[in-house]
Amino acid sequence: MNAKIASLSPSELAYVPFVSVDHMMKNVAAIGIENFIRGLADYIKDDFLRWESFDKKPRIPAHAPQGVIELMPTSDGKTFGFKYVNGHPDNRRDGLQTVTGFGVLSDLATGYPLLFTEMTILTALRTAATSALAATYLAPKGARIMAVIGNGAQSDFQCLGFKALVGITDIRAYDLDPKASQRLARNLAGSGLNVTICKSPEAAIEGAQIITTVTADKKNATILTDNMVGPGVHINAVGGDCPGKTELHKDILLRSDIFVEFPEQTRIEGELQQLPADHEVTELWEVYAGKKAGRTSEYQITLFDSVGFAIEDFAALRFIRDLLPKTGNFIKLDLLADPDDPRDLYGMVLRSQKSGKGAAA
Amino acid sequence: MNAKIASLSPSELAYVPFVSVDHMMKNVAAIGIENFIRGLADYIKDDFLRWESFDKKPRIPAHAPQGVIELMPTSDGKTFGFKYVNGHPDNRRDGLQTVTGFGVLSDLATGYPLLFTEMTILTALRTAATSALAATYLAPKGARIMAVIGNGAQSDFQCLGFKALVGITDIRAYDLDPKASQRLARNLAGSGLNVTICKSPEAAIEGAQIITTVTADKKNATILTDNMVGPGVHINAVGGDCPGKTELHKDILLRSDIFVEFPEQTRIEGELQQLPADHEVTELWEVYAGKKAGRTSEYQITLFDSVGFAIEDFAALRFIRDLLPKTGNFIKLDLLADPDDPRDLYGMVLRSQKSGKGAAA
Repeated sequence: MNAKIASLSPSELAYVPFVSVDHMMKNVAAIGIENFIRGLADYIKDDFLRWESFDKKPRIPAHAPQGVIELMPTSDGKTFGFKYVNGHPDNRRDGLQTVTGFGVLSDLATGYPLLFTEMTILTALRTAATSALAATYLAPKGARIMAVIGNGAQSDFQCLGFKALVGITDIRAYDLDPKASQRLARNLAGSGLNVTICKSPEAAIEGAQIITTVTADKKNATILTDNMVGPGVHINAVGGDCPGKTELHKDILLRSDIFVEFPEQTRIEGELQQLPADHEVTELWEVYAGKKAGRTSEYQITLFDSVGFAIEDFAALRFIRDLLPKTGNFIKLDLLADPDDPRDLYGMVLRSQKSGKGAAA
Repeated sequence: MNAKIASLSPSELAYVPFVSVDHMMKNVAAIGIENFIRGLADYIKDDFLRWESFDKKPRIPAHAPQGVIELMPTSDGKTFGFKYVNGHPDNRRDGLQTVTGFGVLSDLATGYPLLFTEMTILTALRTAATSALAATYLAPKGARIMAVIGNGAQSDFQCLGFKALVGITDIRAYDLDPKASQRLARNLAGSGLNVTICKSPEAAIEGAQIITTVTADKKNATILTDNMVGPGVHINAVGGDCPGKTELHKDILLRSDIFVEFPEQTRIEGELQQLPADHEVTELWEVYAGKKAGRTSEYQITLFDSVGFAIEDFAALRFIRDLLPKTGNFIKLDLLADPDDPRDLYGMVLRSQKSGKGAAA
């Protein structure tokens, strides 16, 4: 027992910082979205550089006819993090997000959560940071023009990420739905990026050094055919990210050097599901660590087969945890029971009832 | 786009009900702890009765030298639930809880969370409900006296659960630390239970029809030896709940009919880890469903080898979700991004920044 005895206010131990959607937007505004993506990329790179210290588990899925809910846990031996994320393609029809998420970072030494945060916006930002970071190693030097095929919710973040990290100045946008491209152009109007809306994928990739595919249909589609892809480009394939969902013709893969986050996962979820299980790929962490080469020639086609990996979320959670003291954009949640005497959990319940009041929620 | 266009207030879709520790205590007070445990037991029984409709996954652990963090997901095909729980035996030394938890219930058809709640208190209550429910099938008829060996945080809840569901009137309490027994007796003073503090385990079990073992040490201990256990008793073994942690001498197990939640898990985590992998056990759901017998004779020793299972947490989450509209003891968290146009996530971020304000957290 200690000085807190018989106190009804939870101590600091009981509180977990919580970042709501509104607070996440305020955190982005506090440092600016490009700095935010740059910061995320730094944390992601840091964690990829210590790749071998992570416990890399496959995602744990719960399937329904309409979609999937996944838990993505990982740990570096000191800190534990997980993301909850859903993927429900038909949600849009009902005015819901197709992908939403939240995450938790915890101290593995005590088991206590350190952070609870929305991750719908954060996932969009970390996905862009992951793509742009990879492109700093894989895109041709001096790349300024990026084709963006698929102009949905993720496309804005990709454009801003590639502006911040790669120096892209021009976006050539294509979507089956011209309204989606107009939306993208409108949102990027004040960003400093020049956006050209294109009438076909072929028109979009004209002159582009980088091709980003980020379409949403949950099926094997062929957004790019082989004859559309010339030598020297970098393909940032973001949309193919679950079994049965791909965007590129197989022949493009066969002409490309393929870079991945975690091969065991990409072979199931990425473009790579079209190729034999032993097809050679390079892991990005090895490129960042200088163990393997990124782009080696100006004629090479490089392909980042992005599916998203738990360590990127872990890095994003770390970034937010470190940002919060600077911005103050969070509230404290009374999530953890904190009795005066840890063995006296019921005593806490009992005293709360007798007093007819408890601590603030 | 719809009527919400350009609105900055999240719609109802964006909010997830959150039950803090304080609100959980208020929810317990609102209906009374015995009714609360009875309600939990009803929901647990309901879910055990549809056992085969659940996706039963093993827990997903992250280990550290100090303890473990586990994610426990399950789904019935319509609803998804998971619990985050830690077990850190040395936390008490630092004034922290050894076990804390929180949980989430979600709609599998949309992936959207329906409830986010503390589960430290809720887990203590559902563990008691699980034990007491099992005892209604396994304890000798007319049992009134229960020995409780180990008088830590879980013991109060066990006593109240057995009063509510089994009709126990007398508790015989023993702990290595007499202060723990005094604490238990003090907390139960107004409950209607008679509590006798005993000086040895042998004294505690005198005349008891039910023996509850609920000690906390993470080691293979022998709280009960074979000669202490007479015919006809029901043993409710709660403390042995992870690899390397057991409470009963192996010979007791060999004389008992053993009942378990989920054999695959109990064989690793429960008292059962002392026996060969093919030792016969009965699954509780089969007893509740009338497929297997519970207690069949007055001389039989029955043993519930309790380790805790995800479906109990799922049932507890359902119980809280259904209770909240009646008590109102929750707040709404702005956890889900809810742009006017689901494809326009960045537009929401952008408008929030331009307006210089966002929705309430």
